[in-house]
Amino acid sequence: MKNTLYRNSLVAAFSICFSFAQAQQPAIIEDFKPSELNQPQQEYPMVNSQGYARFKIIAPAADSVRVSLGLGGRGGTKLAKAEDGSWMGTTEGPMDEGFHYYNVRIDGGKFNDPGTLNYYGSVRWESGIEIPAKDQGFYALKNVPHGNVQQILFPSPSTNTSRRAFVYTPPGYEKGKDKYPVLYLQHGWGEDETAWMNQGHANLIMDNLIADGKIKPFIIVCTYGMTNDIKPGQGGGLRSFKIEPFQTVLVDELIPYVDANFRTIAKKEQRAMAGLSMGGFETKTISMNKTDVFDYYGLLSGGVYAPADFKDKPQPKLIFISCGSKERPDGVKKAGEELKAAGFNAVSYVSEGTAHEFQTWRRSLYQMAPLLFK
Amino acid sequence: MKNTLYRNSLVAAFSICFSFAQAQQPAIIEDFKPSELNQPQQEYPMVNSQGYARFKIIAPAADSVRVSLGLGGRGGTKLAKAEDGSWMGTTEGPMDEGFHYYNVRIDGGKFNDPGTLNYYGSVRWESGIEIPAKDQGFYALKNVPHGNVQQILFPSPSTNTSRRAFVYTPPGYEKGKDKYPVLYLQHGWGEDETAWMNQGHANLIMDNLIADGKIKPFIIVCTYGMTNDIKPGQGGGLRSFKIEPFQTVLVDELIPYVDANFRTIAKKEQRAMAGLSMGGFETKTISMNKTDVFDYYGLLSGGVYAPADFKDKPQPKLIFISCGSKERPDGVKKAGEELKAAGFNAVSYVSEGTAHEFQTWRRSLYQMAPLLFK
Repeated sequence: MKNTLYRNSLVAAFSICFSFAQAQQPAIIEDFKPSELNQPQQEYPMVNSQGYARFKIIAPAADSVRVSLGLGGRGGTKLAKAEDGSWMGTTEGPMDEGFHYYNVRIDGGKFNDPGTLNYYGSVRWESGIEIPAKDQGFYALKNVPHGNVQQILFPSPSTNTSRRAFVYTPPGYEKGKDKYPVLYLQHGWGEDETAWMNQGHANLIMDNLIADGKIKPFIIVCTYGMTNDIKPGQGGGLRSFKIEPFQTVLVDELIPYVDANFRTIAKKEQRAMAGLSMGGFETKTISMNKTDVFDYYGLLSGGVYAPADFKDKPQPKLIFISCGSKERPDGVKKAGEELKAAGFNAVSYVSEGTAHEFQTWRRSLYQMAPLLFK
Repeated sequence: MKNTLYRNSLVAAFSICFSFAQAQQPAIIEDFKPSELNQPQQEYPMVNSQGYARFKIIAPAADSVRVSLGLGGRGGTKLAKAEDGSWMGTTEGPMDEGFHYYNVRIDGGKFNDPGTLNYYGSVRWESGIEIPAKDQGFYALKNVPHGNVQQILFPSPSTNTSRRAFVYTPPGYEKGKDKYPVLYLQHGWGEDETAWMNQGHANLIMDNLIADGKIKPFIIVCTYGMTNDIKPGQGGGLRSFKIEPFQTVLVDELIPYVDANFRTIAKKEQRAMAGLSMGGFETKTISMNKTDVFDYYGLLSGGVYAPADFKDKPQPKLIFISCGSKERPDGVKKAGEELKAAGFNAVSYVSEGTAHEFQTWRRSLYQMAPLLFK
């Protein structure tokens, strides 16, 4: 401990001399530890207590190695060749708390960092890194009763295939007899049905909320939100996306399957839909098209509702809208106020210090869950 | 169709001239299709009807790109720079049917092919490629009732953590009342609890066997078979592995948790253990240490039992031993005969044309499942 402090003071002293070159970034504290998303036995990437990330890539004969970090990652990090032939580099500044996608550009190609686990985003499995957040306890794996996450393959006549969904059932579900409300929770563009459990830790958020007595247990169902499936080599994706085929999958196929195979309370008053980003767009469109299906709506960094949207439509029991403070928080707050003024049960939430990334959505789920099914 | 035939004939005609250079490999038929394990929108890697694989890696400034294929992959494939700056290459010969791990060496570093999905093997997430097998129907996703695969997090006081397992429950489990036998099914060295469902398609094998009326439904449980966990940067692994801590996790923690939380028939006569490779070693050791727990033993490419092993020990209801024809089939057959001669209910099985790889183990599960819980 003393050694660390001493070394840090040295670093701090030296970095004053170079502060002009460091663009006013704080001095780097040398307390780097492996990112918690690393593969077994892998030391790199590392993160420090300030949120800096340090990368190490083995490619001795490469000419150029660069880390591409997504939003909140302060752009890319060019790695430099170290004495042992590896490529190393540290981010220019601290990164936002929480989860970030990234990849590694090696001699003009896009690859993943072999040191870390992969997460589906940007229509590819990307490398992931986790910057420990001050509030990380709410999604940590704790010694509490755990619910299960199960993969189901449900028949989808409209798309002529078996489609996959992940279902979170709360602790005690397997041996109990209770029936539960259900939240249908959608991922964002370029992600898939694995995102909320893998990147979002939705299951651990639920386990912890239930253990703390902050919510009544409910089921969460996540399925793939696109149906214009993407043949190899074809573009497809967002531009050709239409909501109707997905609405059919969700409302006419998935919900009846879940209600038939799980102990759900199969009525509108016990059913919620929410989604992040593109999943928010889907939630808004489907909730407005099918007003008899859901009674709780959540848009997480995925647009807002206005009172005018509900002309000739029933009011839902809850509207939850959220985003990160680095997105457009004013629009979210204003929409919340307008909805409340118009008599809606609306709640807006802004995640402090985060952008269009999963830390915003983890926190949004944590805020929204206690408001559902009241 | 005519075009394809015509093109193929041309290729066949030309390749006669070069047959001496091709080391007696058959002429390559140009009917390559994307491997079914590719990521969305990805055309490469491709496979053809003969079992050749063709790779394409984008890394225009790289000096050297090579594909490292595991067992059954006929060694590596050196890629050559194509006109568009990408690197391309085709395997020297047809590969064995089924699943193969591989990775890509770029300028001296080990990376994954961005075109395909990753599978945990060799203590890292590796690239995966699937060579369509003639018998692929038994593990295909079909329009039949599907069981679920669920992730459970079970408390493990002995290792002071929550450990993960995957549980396959058969179709109808969720809403039914029946109790089921359980097979505890272990992965091999360098793999983890995801292997049997991801690489092995154990859930689809079960769905199809049940739909065909070939087995009575049972539950499968897969957990991580090592407890000497592997701190970042440390070696660990096989050399420091001891069976006792894992035996405690399996027998004293996981089995009671599964019996408490799932509708199992919680007795020896309705409980099996099997494993592949290292998982076979675990099965043999634990079945001999704890003769009151399991009544069906399966070693898949993971050693054999001899009658002498059972001195002073009860005979199990079944011993199943198997391997690929490219492993040591004589030892497996001989052990089966000796066990049968000594009065055991023993079955040996050899998977034709496969090595120490997952196609051997998919087939072994398919052969073993109907023999269990009789």
